[in-house]
Amino acid sequence: MSDRPGRIMSGEMAEQPRVLRRVLEQGAPAIGAVARAVAARRPRFVLLTARGTSDNAALYAKYLLEIRLGLPCGLTSMSTTTAYGAKPDLTDVLVVTVSQSGGSPDLVASTEAAREAGAVTLAVTNNADSPLAAVSEHHIDILAGPEKALPATKTYTASLLALYLFVEGLRGDGGGTAARAVPDLAAEVLDRRPEVRALAGRYRFAERMVITSRGYGYPTAKEAALKMMETSYIPALAYSGADLLHGPLAMVDNISPVIAVVPDGRGGTALQPVLDRLRGRGADLVVIGPRPQVEAASAGFVLPTEGLPEELQPILEILPLQLLAHEVTIARGQDPDAPRALAKVTETR
Amino acid sequence: MSDRPGRIMSGEMAEQPRVLRRVLEQGAPAIGAVARAVAARRPRFVLLTARGTSDNAALYAKYLLEIRLGLPCGLTSMSTTTAYGAKPDLTDVLVVTVSQSGGSPDLVASTEAAREAGAVTLAVTNNADSPLAAVSEHHIDILAGPEKALPATKTYTASLLALYLFVEGLRGDGGGTAARAVPDLAAEVLDRRPEVRALAGRYRFAERMVITSRGYGYPTAKEAALKMMETSYIPALAYSGADLLHGPLAMVDNISPVIAVVPDGRGGTALQPVLDRLRGRGADLVVIGPRPQVEAASAGFVLPTEGLPEELQPILEILPLQLLAHEVTIARGQDPDAPRALAKVTETR
Repeated sequence: MSDRPGRIMSGEMAEQPRVLRRVLEQGAPAIGAVARAVAARRPRFVLLTARGTSDNAALYAKYLLEIRLGLPCGLTSMSTTTAYGAKPDLTDVLVVTVSQSGGSPDLVASTEAAREAGAVTLAVTNNADSPLAAVSEHHIDILAGPEKALPATKTYTASLLALYLFVEGLRGDGGGTAARAVPDLAAEVLDRRPEVRALAGRYRFAERMVITSRGYGYPTAKEAALKMMETSYIPALAYSGADLLHGPLAMVDNISPVIAVVPDGRGGTALQPVLDRLRGRGADLVVIGPRPQVEAASAGFVLPTEGLPEELQPILEILPLQLLAHEVTIARGQDPDAPRALAKVTETR
Repeated sequence: MSDRPGRIMSGEMAEQPRVLRRVLEQGAPAIGAVARAVAARRPRFVLLTARGTSDNAALYAKYLLEIRLGLPCGLTSMSTTTAYGAKPDLTDVLVVTVSQSGGSPDLVASTEAAREAGAVTLAVTNNADSPLAAVSEHHIDILAGPEKALPATKTYTASLLALYLFVEGLRGDGGGTAARAVPDLAAEVLDRRPEVRALAGRYRFAERMVITSRGYGYPTAKEAALKMMETSYIPALAYSGADLLHGPLAMVDNISPVIAVVPDGRGGTALQPVLDRLRGRGADLVVIGPRPQVEAASAGFVLPTEGLPEELQPILEILPLQLLAHEVTIARGQDPDAPRALAKVTETR
């Protein structure tokens, strides 16, 4: 362990307001141009391809595309092409591949195959010189700067914002207006680290954890679970609220703490019966969301979502959960910068 | 707890060879007719909608549709329509909804919305008189008979076989020939319960578990994890082999046992580097798969997959894992028939 465990991850989390500002100020025009070029091709379906943290960003884009644009979407099961050689007809299909490094050989191969099969291809990466950017017809640079910590943080929020601007662009809207508040709100959330440290104590000895949400908050729940597992090694199970009622709820009791990401909007409303059920079971329920939701829970973190459209809230929601993964890991005597077994570019095929 | 814990689940697991035979003998002609009617509409994209165990059957269908037919697919994020009122254009889209009961109000609502949006709708249920069957243009009855245990078993394998016959029907093939061996092979696997009981001992005190696979075996990994959680409450995390390398591998060590479902075919080949990596980390690796794979692992269960196409193997793969969930639960002094908090028809909206 280094002298200051988690120093690299901490530094990159703290960069997020600056990175988000950069995406809005320097990235937006190029993203708008890509959106116009893609819109001109009139895609009818969208396939999203990614792994790990980027897969959670892709899932966020799926909600945006379905809700804001009414475009049916799917997440790619990559092995269908890489292992089984499936040759789908991708005419009228937009294939979006999200990858921080742009270097995974399987993503490069699947993007090449998609392009040959007639798809409009778009890569969203943090490296404009990457092989993935090179083989894609279109590329969006998320401008997050080099990410050195193994747990991805700033590239996640930068991907969310870039994907938001892209989808707003497809709708014929710059999207920048509503998003303009996000960098300052992110800074405000990140400054409240002592509150997160207080929450971290309750998970120091946790043997497992359930994280739930619905709608736009569901990708946040998945990303928070991944972050928690890859830093602290606590098995964290992410479920949409509806899925939680279909079986895994049996696992929730007073020794399995639950974190609920409650969007301020329709996702939060849809999650309400699940929260009631969890409270009824006496679950230890920590809420990340608007004040009244936090006050009705065992504990939580109030998000400054007032006036912010629900579809932009995921960029804020993940921040206290990144901090939480970091703090819990340190409380357990481990180093968030040095998770066992993780490589930054995963070379699966 | 009842006098004979797990009696209901046990009985339904044992029915599976008979149910599979019924699907092949009595169900196949009607499934073929549905497939012909759907094929005549020439869908270009497929959306699959389901929850819980049925969602894992839907994922299996996604692999079949992409690999065998080259049809791009997506799994529905249901809240986009039910919570956010998204109105996608579903012209040329086949929407398949899988539900044991056919009674969940959210599935009925999303199917009605899909039909109004221009989709060809197909419901796959165990109840021809269900509201879901009524609102769908087409219906496939999986003929599993009443399922009383809360953990679904026979409706899962019946759904897989029905979906297999449907996809083969879309290809213009009855599909019955290759599948004819499945019921007897299933009976053979289920007869080897003492072998599973021996494996169950190693999980009696497990605090968590990772289940991995790739390709056609991935839905099995997810279903096995769900079964384990809803009966024994052991947090079981399912990952595709490629995703496992992207973070959660940090969680795997000698106290986190791993079960790998190794398809006899391309999925197994693609999983090989992951198995090597797990062995290199000294993981306790139990393999469900062909003999050489089991022999290279810490322990396992040899599946009689010889000569059986890879796409039919999932119907066998899940059987020892259903038995395992049952045996582990009994070893932990709990009753698989009475999981906490589960309702058979989940009324989410």
